[in-house]
Amino acid sequence: MNVISFIPRRPRGKVHVPTVTLAHGGGGKAMKDLIDDVFVEAFDNPLLAPLDDQARLDLAELACQGDRLAFSTDSFVIDPLVFPGGDIGKLAVCGTVNDLAVGGATPLYLSCAVIIEEGVSIDFLRQIAGSMASTARGAGVAIVTGDTKVVNKGACDGMFITTTGIGVVPAGVELGAHRARLGDAVLVNGLLGDHGAAILCARGDMALQSPIESDCAPLQDLVGALLRAAPNTRFIRDPTRGGVATVLNEIAEAAQVAIEIEESATPLRDEVRGFCDILGLDPLYLANEGKIVAIAPPEEAQQALGAMSAHPLGKAASIIGKVVAGEPGRVTMRTTFGGRRIVDMLVGEQLPRIC
Amino acid sequence: MNVISFIPRRPRGKVHVPTVTLAHGGGGKAMKDLIDDVFVEAFDNPLLAPLDDQARLDLAELACQGDRLAFSTDSFVIDPLVFPGGDIGKLAVCGTVNDLAVGGATPLYLSCAVIIEEGVSIDFLRQIAGSMASTARGAGVAIVTGDTKVVNKGACDGMFITTTGIGVVPAGVELGAHRARLGDAVLVNGLLGDHGAAILCARGDMALQSPIESDCAPLQDLVGALLRAAPNTRFIRDPTRGGVATVLNEIAEAAQVAIEIEESATPLRDEVRGFCDILGLDPLYLANEGKIVAIAPPEEAQQALGAMSAHPLGKAASIIGKVVAGEPGRVTMRTTFGGRRIVDMLVGEQLPRIC
Repeated sequence: MNVISFIPRRPRGKVHVPTVTLAHGGGGKAMKDLIDDVFVEAFDNPLLAPLDDQARLDLAELACQGDRLAFSTDSFVIDPLVFPGGDIGKLAVCGTVNDLAVGGATPLYLSCAVIIEEGVSIDFLRQIAGSMASTARGAGVAIVTGDTKVVNKGACDGMFITTTGIGVVPAGVELGAHRARLGDAVLVNGLLGDHGAAILCARGDMALQSPIESDCAPLQDLVGALLRAAPNTRFIRDPTRGGVATVLNEIAEAAQVAIEIEESATPLRDEVRGFCDILGLDPLYLANEGKIVAIAPPEEAQQALGAMSAHPLGKAASIIGKVVAGEPGRVTMRTTFGGRRIVDMLVGEQLPRIC
Repeated sequence: MNVISFIPRRPRGKVHVPTVTLAHGGGGKAMKDLIDDVFVEAFDNPLLAPLDDQARLDLAELACQGDRLAFSTDSFVIDPLVFPGGDIGKLAVCGTVNDLAVGGATPLYLSCAVIIEEGVSIDFLRQIAGSMASTARGAGVAIVTGDTKVVNKGACDGMFITTTGIGVVPAGVELGAHRARLGDAVLVNGLLGDHGAAILCARGDMALQSPIESDCAPLQDLVGALLRAAPNTRFIRDPTRGGVATVLNEIAEAAQVAIEIEESATPLRDEVRGFCDILGLDPLYLANEGKIVAIAPPEEAQQALGAMSAHPLGKAASIIGKVVAGEPGRVTMRTTFGGRRIVDMLVGEQLPRIC
């Protein structure tokens, strides 16, 4: 039976609507068709049963891979939705995969909840779903359950995606910011700030053009290689919002240690350096989406560096500093000119909607 | 070190900001303070470590409770954010708890990802977090991990919340829409359509005032009682978006059976009936947030009804119909006037942003 519609905007009389309408969020046939046509087709896997509101995962199989379940969620509200080096779909998969991986977990399953603004084209939605699907395949995770909501025009900016991930932490893996000790090395796996710089350029507000691409990438494989080479690694974190500076401050505070980094050892792309110079930005606060900060004990620092450098996502890996004697919670940088400055936690915002 | 800000809207010079600003989403100190002050305080539990991007759950403990992990996600975009009988926080917890429960799982853990529009008051955020916390306590689940994003004014309508849930399905529990058989009873646990009617009234578009409150409630306890009383229950589903009509159509299609319901047996509040009459709405398509549709074998139908009726959330429970011989996939209703009409799947939207 037909029911009255309160929203006159919905195009009528069309059989194949090229854009998402409020009807696609109504819970009825249009939504089911959209989910089948776009998401189930892209995410193609037996666990994703569109009729069920939940995925079911075998607990005995999970327990074979470790002793703790890791559980992590992130919403992605990035602007623009497509940017050099990726799009919101790729980012939404990498972001949650990386949150699991840096905790030492093997990422296994993702859920995907999409909020779509009325009027987004179905083709674009298919493109984003395809991007999520191929990124998930590359990261070895399956998208097993999801949700779709449609909001009226103007009630959200294009599309927001929330992914939640499940992984398993192998027995014996213990990582924590509080474990940093005097003498530990601070490592990163490559050039910093690419994601933040790429997004800022892509927005066009700055009228800057640049060849900088986001570093957005799934890091589970790199982290696995690092942990095999340096099993006593203390802590790993992905420096996304707030950048490397914020992660280092969190570590220094959690472990009540001081950290000193060397400006000369901090890997930066020339374009990012120039870009930051022009805009008065500090690259240490720029977001990364394919980078880790790792704290390794001194006796494993070279193995850690070697494992990262040998990985395709770690070619520009570097030991950027170490845990030093000093005021607990304090992060400093030795500049290329021989000075020393404090690297604070980010206080305000640097770039809104960077992820 | 301070960095330049690209958004001039952020109020400056205030120490205690009463509203959420873009800085609260920046990943730095402001965000950490907001999360500590609002969410960690409200959700108070040892697993919620604000510095870690993931919660870790003991797999052996999970395996004690069943053999399968249930995993479900939902975004909530309801308008208005506060409504008679609840708010977006309560709804976001109930919605995911119920998705787990109707699959036969014991809901255990939730993640919570919040997208907030710049300008929302911190007090309001605290109110919603408090509502989530108390609903979670009542439902026996812990909110163990989360994420906060802030978007610029106009980029989202107030607040969206995505919750993802983990539960455990006890060994032997097998529920599925395809399991419905000829002769099975169709039950609901109470008055239908309250949520949809309450939201529509609360929006004020209709200039209708009514005492109808949303039925928003966590159903894990009711479902547990039902499954203990009628262990061979075939299928349970919460009729949210698309209402009871859509759920019945999904069951009829999945099991390739026909379903007939009796209008006279369908529990409806007088106010909802009147409201639907005035607006030309069909209450079978109105959303519910504290109701289940259950399919029970004929020999357990009375026990199922008894268990639901004895529960505080099932006082108006009713056997509303049964699985009958007829065209596979067809749902019909015998009207109070003795007629018979087809109850189709919802084709367009009935109410956007109902959950």
